[in-house]
Amino acid sequence: MPSFAIGVDLGGTTSGTEVAKGRDHVINDMTAVILDLAAKFQNVGKLAGIGVGVPGIIDMTTGMLRESPNLPGWHDYPVQDEIEKRLKARVMLENDANAAALGESWLGAARDYDSMCMLTLGTGVGGGIVLNGDAWRGMTGMAGELGHITVDPNGPPCGCGSRGCVEQYASATAIKRMAKEAIANGSAPGLERAAHGNVEFSAKSIYQMAVQGDESARTIFRTVGWALGIVIADLTNIFNAPMYVIGGGVSSAWEAFAPTMLEEIRKRSFVYGATTPADSAPKRGSTIVTRALLGSDAGLYGAARLGLVTVSGKNKKSPA
Amino acid sequence: MPSFAIGVDLGGTTSGTEVAKGRDHVINDMTAVILDLAAKFQNVGKLAGIGVGVPGIIDMTTGMLRESPNLPGWHDYPVQDEIEKRLKARVMLENDANAAALGESWLGAARDYDSMCMLTLGTGVGGGIVLNGDAWRGMTGMAGELGHITVDPNGPPCGCGSRGCVEQYASATAIKRMAKEAIANGSAPGLERAAHGNVEFSAKSIYQMAVQGDESARTIFRTVGWALGIVIADLTNIFNAPMYVIGGGVSSAWEAFAPTMLEEIRKRSFVYGATTPADSAPKRGSTIVTRALLGSDAGLYGAARLGLVTVSGKNKKSPA
Repeated sequence: MPSFAIGVDLGGTTSGTEVAKGRDHVINDMTAVILDLAAKFQNVGKLAGIGVGVPGIIDMTTGMLRESPNLPGWHDYPVQDEIEKRLKARVMLENDANAAALGESWLGAARDYDSMCMLTLGTGVGGGIVLNGDAWRGMTGMAGELGHITVDPNGPPCGCGSRGCVEQYASATAIKRMAKEAIANGSAPGLERAAHGNVEFSAKSIYQMAVQGDESARTIFRTVGWALGIVIADLTNIFNAPMYVIGGGVSSAWEAFAPTMLEEIRKRSFVYGATTPADSAPKRGSTIVTRALLGSDAGLYGAARLGLVTVSGKNKKSPA
Repeated sequence: MPSFAIGVDLGGTTSGTEVAKGRDHVINDMTAVILDLAAKFQNVGKLAGIGVGVPGIIDMTTGMLRESPNLPGWHDYPVQDEIEKRLKARVMLENDANAAALGESWLGAARDYDSMCMLTLGTGVGGGIVLNGDAWRGMTGMAGELGHITVDPNGPPCGCGSRGCVEQYASATAIKRMAKEAIANGSAPGLERAAHGNVEFSAKSIYQMAVQGDESARTIFRTVGWALGIVIADLTNIFNAPMYVIGGGVSSAWEAFAPTMLEEIRKRSFVYGATTPADSAPKRGSTIVTRALLGSDAGLYGAARLGLVTVSGKNKKSPA
């Protein structure tokens, strides 16, 4: 009998209205759907496992949610225990950015590679690292926070406590902030007109203005590319991985930020330069920087993948 | 019968005078010593393997030396083939900074941990990453170039082609440059007196002045700590590893740069903050940043370790 896995993206399936009903409501709903699915397919195959992508930082040693901006009130909630209690089965939890990286690594842009790094550009900037086919989770499951790599040590303050993190230059939030700054200093009349009275004024509308040739909007996306370039150059020098993947909503603006990003990577990473000659097309053995393929489903695929693989626990806790 | 390994640190054992005699001379000398050693111990144990730490970038897929500032004329030299031909045995090559990290990981500061990052502060800044007990080498063996992580994107130009790499703030060369800059802009009378007519004026003498309380010298080491702090904060957010080790000659100045470094890490890495409460002593589960223990022998131990372990090749080439 073939086997199957169930993957859940807790962030993707949980709206604000649902979250407002409380943790137990969300977990009950989710486990009910899982049990339904498992029953429906019980004659088709064997349930190999269940993976759940969670928006927030999970302490892998305890299965507790440490921090989750999108799930207020879940702080230090034993989310793994609560799910397992209801399902009477083991589940694998994963940070949603790691799950997205695992998804792209399994079936998406990096499907032909064992190792990759992924940056997910959304409200914030998430990160995930896959090494030799598995997510690198580190000592307590907090690894892969690539959104908080420093781009400019004197840059804008970040919610994490540092300054000048890439999240402050390449997230949708940062793009809106940079547009407001440009409007405030009077250097962006086009953006000012577009923003005026427009409640929908967003990273997307700023991108559309960049496409239409507005110079201030284009400058903002060059800053996005500059910051991503610095961080991917760092990651290339650190990992010498074959592939770096950019996903999340902001990655739709690829055309607007990619040229500056690639120029910056080439300028800053001799590892990139050594593996990717400027005069030849990317090929096997090159370092490839590319867009994600699975869109918002990446985390779902990654969670299902987690359910499929027998977890050796090898990366679960680094130290003995 | 017990087994033994032979480790060679090609950089450590090769003086400028030796190098001037040419590649063949160096390799002949080295292999003669290895054969002598192997013969001497043949009744004591079985030779498990030979590891050689090489100062420079090795293409692990071909065993060629790509670049080596300390071995001019060895560019694209098939160093692995040449050694194996003479020894009629397989050898494991390793970049010397990786070898140092493996050494500290096996018998030094990180001996109780499976995963660590090491920065070696010498003429340049070398880096090595050990994950689950093995060096992370990446796609072509160029991983772990931690000395070229960006600290300030507008900082001083670096030999690698980028700007503001940590090597430009935390190497012995950078310390001398910063002292010269301070003298040139007239802000460092103490350093100026010390440097005047002193051909031995070095990172070490600048450190001694910092110890004696010279404010300009102290400022330089605070800059060293600031830059290291930014990079280790990045690495902590990326790897969530239990230990980060600082080695190399400049690490002797630990007292002068460590306070600023640790303050910067705490300020910039929420992963560090989450794993290392400010009010408690470091313990199991904390993120520990510490000095190397093995001094200049680290690379030698690491090379011997490489000879001892059966190489699975798992990390040798990341992509399939």
